[in-house]
Amino acid sequence: MTALQAMDQFLETHLDDSIEELKQLVAQPSVSAKNQGLQECSEMVAVMLKKRGFSVVIHETKGAPIVTAERKGKSETTLLFYDHYDVQPPEPLELWESPAFEPEVRDGKVFGRGTSDNKGNIVNRLFAIDSLLEVMGELPCTVKFLIEGEEEISSKNLEEFVYSHKQELAADACIWEFGSVDHRDVPVQYLGLRGICYVQLEVETADMDVHSGLGGTIFPNAAWRLVWALATLKNEQEEILIDRFYEDMLLPSAQDVALLKELPDFAEEYQTRYGVKEFLKGIKGGYELNVEEVYRPSCTICGLTSGYQGDGSKTVLPAKASAKIDFRLVPDQRPEKILKLLRAHLDKHGFTDIHIVDLGGEAPSKTDADDPFIEMVAASAKDVYGMPMQVVPMTGGSGPNFIVQDALHIPIASLGVGYPGSGAHSPNENIRLGDYLKSAKHLVRVLKELGKKKLTE
Amino acid sequence: MTALQAMDQFLETHLDDSIEELKQLVAQPSVSAKNQGLQECSEMVAVMLKKRGFSVVIHETKGAPIVTAERKGKSETTLLFYDHYDVQPPEPLELWESPAFEPEVRDGKVFGRGTSDNKGNIVNRLFAIDSLLEVMGELPCTVKFLIEGEEEISSKNLEEFVYSHKQELAADACIWEFGSVDHRDVPVQYLGLRGICYVQLEVETADMDVHSGLGGTIFPNAAWRLVWALATLKNEQEEILIDRFYEDMLLPSAQDVALLKELPDFAEEYQTRYGVKEFLKGIKGGYELNVEEVYRPSCTICGLTSGYQGDGSKTVLPAKASAKIDFRLVPDQRPEKILKLLRAHLDKHGFTDIHIVDLGGEAPSKTDADDPFIEMVAASAKDVYGMPMQVVPMTGGSGPNFIVQDALHIPIASLGVGYPGSGAHSPNENIRLGDYLKSAKHLVRVLKELGKKKLTE
Repeated sequence: MTALQAMDQFLETHLDDSIEELKQLVAQPSVSAKNQGLQECSEMVAVMLKKRGFSVVIHETKGAPIVTAERKGKSETTLLFYDHYDVQPPEPLELWESPAFEPEVRDGKVFGRGTSDNKGNIVNRLFAIDSLLEVMGELPCTVKFLIEGEEEISSKNLEEFVYSHKQELAADACIWEFGSVDHRDVPVQYLGLRGICYVQLEVETADMDVHSGLGGTIFPNAAWRLVWALATLKNEQEEILIDRFYEDMLLPSAQDVALLKELPDFAEEYQTRYGVKEFLKGIKGGYELNVEEVYRPSCTICGLTSGYQGDGSKTVLPAKASAKIDFRLVPDQRPEKILKLLRAHLDKHGFTDIHIVDLGGEAPSKTDADDPFIEMVAASAKDVYGMPMQVVPMTGGSGPNFIVQDALHIPIASLGVGYPGSGAHSPNENIRLGDYLKSAKHLVRVLKELGKKKLTE
Repeated sequence: MTALQAMDQFLETHLDDSIEELKQLVAQPSVSAKNQGLQECSEMVAVMLKKRGFSVVIHETKGAPIVTAERKGKSETTLLFYDHYDVQPPEPLELWESPAFEPEVRDGKVFGRGTSDNKGNIVNRLFAIDSLLEVMGELPCTVKFLIEGEEEISSKNLEEFVYSHKQELAADACIWEFGSVDHRDVPVQYLGLRGICYVQLEVETADMDVHSGLGGTIFPNAAWRLVWALATLKNEQEEILIDRFYEDMLLPSAQDVALLKELPDFAEEYQTRYGVKEFLKGIKGGYELNVEEVYRPSCTICGLTSGYQGDGSKTVLPAKASAKIDFRLVPDQRPEKILKLLRAHLDKHGFTDIHIVDLGGEAPSKTDADDPFIEMVAASAKDVYGMPMQVVPMTGGSGPNFIVQDALHIPIASLGVGYPGSGAHSPNENIRLGDYLKSAKHLVRVLKELGKKKLTE
């Protein structure tokens, strides 16, 4: 039996143990949006790392603690894992078939908030490390972890931390928090993430809600002010109407266009999975859908709140209204600039009464497709999945990749346990046991490869 | 001591008992919007009426029970009281200084949901009746009650009931559920109410909420669909943009204009009480404010709901969004027609995906200022308040007056316990004990007057 076979066997026979460990981690709520359970969860993660012989530090920040860990390996190469132990809020609770923080295995899947995003990957990486240590007695390369607790709220304190801990975090390459197969079960390598600028727009027109019979024709209405302000931001043709919004937007490179054209047509998959009848702007699918999904900046209303929201009718004129808005940004847009443009836009349209609360921003980031580390990670999937990873130049989501890339100057690859039905950020978040096992096997191969030689050789 | 003096004395010495009875009624939640406690409350009201020797019937309907009651009196005249035992939802609960359904007397006021609208008036009317029975041994005229439990949700089952019980309800005049003094403590006689058409607009664009990183540029967003649809309904100049919306609108009569001009300037009062900085359309106050308040139809957003509404950020693309909208109507607009015009408007603007839920409608109604009953009620206030009632041609609120007026062909007067700080439909709803006593004294005089002669004589 080769070492690789022995490690695969270890993973197959210890899958249940790893899932048990994952369930423990998922059972610890850690909702950064609500500042819930973050300290507890960071400590739990630290204990898990120490169990694998890592030297661990829990760093206090202005927000959630950041966990760093390091264990020396055989080669001179260092791999950094970026992960986060915080999760999205579990609401709406009534749509979960089993409680969000009471993880459960059914039908070959593990259900619970964070199983996919991103606790599943944390424990999966530890699982691969267990296998390497068991069979080889040491790690093939040095492994570091950077695990924060505010990824779901725009990593507010990560930038300062990373720039002031460059040496501790120094590495040759990074594997990012997520990764998945697509709807054809092809593993996917994402090279870039869009940026984000997340704001809450708030307006207050009176000291209290008023009977709508009195105020309807004479008092300003916070909900109307908000609706009118929002309607100036984007039109029904999906054009964002903020002056200079698009000016820093880069077109996809020729290489990116080629990669996007190699992607399958996701139209039917999206329509079936999400129950979406038609795509925006008359797009039918294929390359047009792929490029639009990730190479356009967005302006998404994530939430609306005003007045009476219960059953039936209540005749009230609301004094307050608010909206949550998420702008996804593409290279080279920057969240700080979008914030300024948004303020100027509202003022220009007479909405000086609309207050902007900055809920966090992140710049977009991208790694080159021909980086040797990316090529190695993509190629080493073949032995596990029967095919190399499909390289996707950009994904629609966001994360603090830009910070790591800009501070440490390293390539960032993605590799993980997700699949399109994982429902990250949705009720019934889950992962499939089969994907979990494959991801660990893939990781073992990547780490083993990093033990052979320097990446750049 | 005259009979009137004896009755006033009875009211003064029994005020605490009546307030105790009111507190019992307020302590029984009866929120029609939530179908909460309606049966229980109707039974409680029935018991209170029986205690005064009324023959009482609780009529089952498709919704909340309707209570009718009658007690014969000396004269051939019959007075009908219209009241409702249901109340508005108490939300937002956190703004109540004492719990909504745990009534409390503080600073000469009774606090609790329904103290003003309309349980305070129900018990106040019984209090006046107690006084008449105690001193005179009988009622001066026949008194009937029509007390429903769905006034706050547009009296959905009243119309059918009233038209099929015309004979039982037959009367010479009606006193409506509400009445109040204005901010100068001048008692006010409202002759008309605006109509209402209350709808919920709903839109659903997918089977589930989606990660906003995926769908923002390619999936339809329910919140955006709603915002764009709403923005077509009314512009920032407060013009309702629905075709033919204004076509049945009558201008105020010369008599109404004269009455509106006699009203004080409410500008400062509204600004102080509600914390409203400016009125709509640059209106400063006075007649312009008075006529705009009640003689214009409105389109009020009463509530907005979509996506994530908790603290912080959640990057989600909402599959569902809804808005509650209240159109206040003026003579001769009709809610059924407005509903049709709204549907046509949404379709015309491409919003066939927006579903309209009809949450109830009521036609506007008006009684003539020179009706002898109105004149008598207004004049008989003088003995109690030191001045006759100020006659106001129309109030901005709505109610099922049109049904009673159209079915029974009787004048409708208003008289009650409220004041501008009552906060009907708001947290900390309350009435002042002084107003409560005056209202009962006024009622005693009106009833006594109805014992003297036929109204038309």
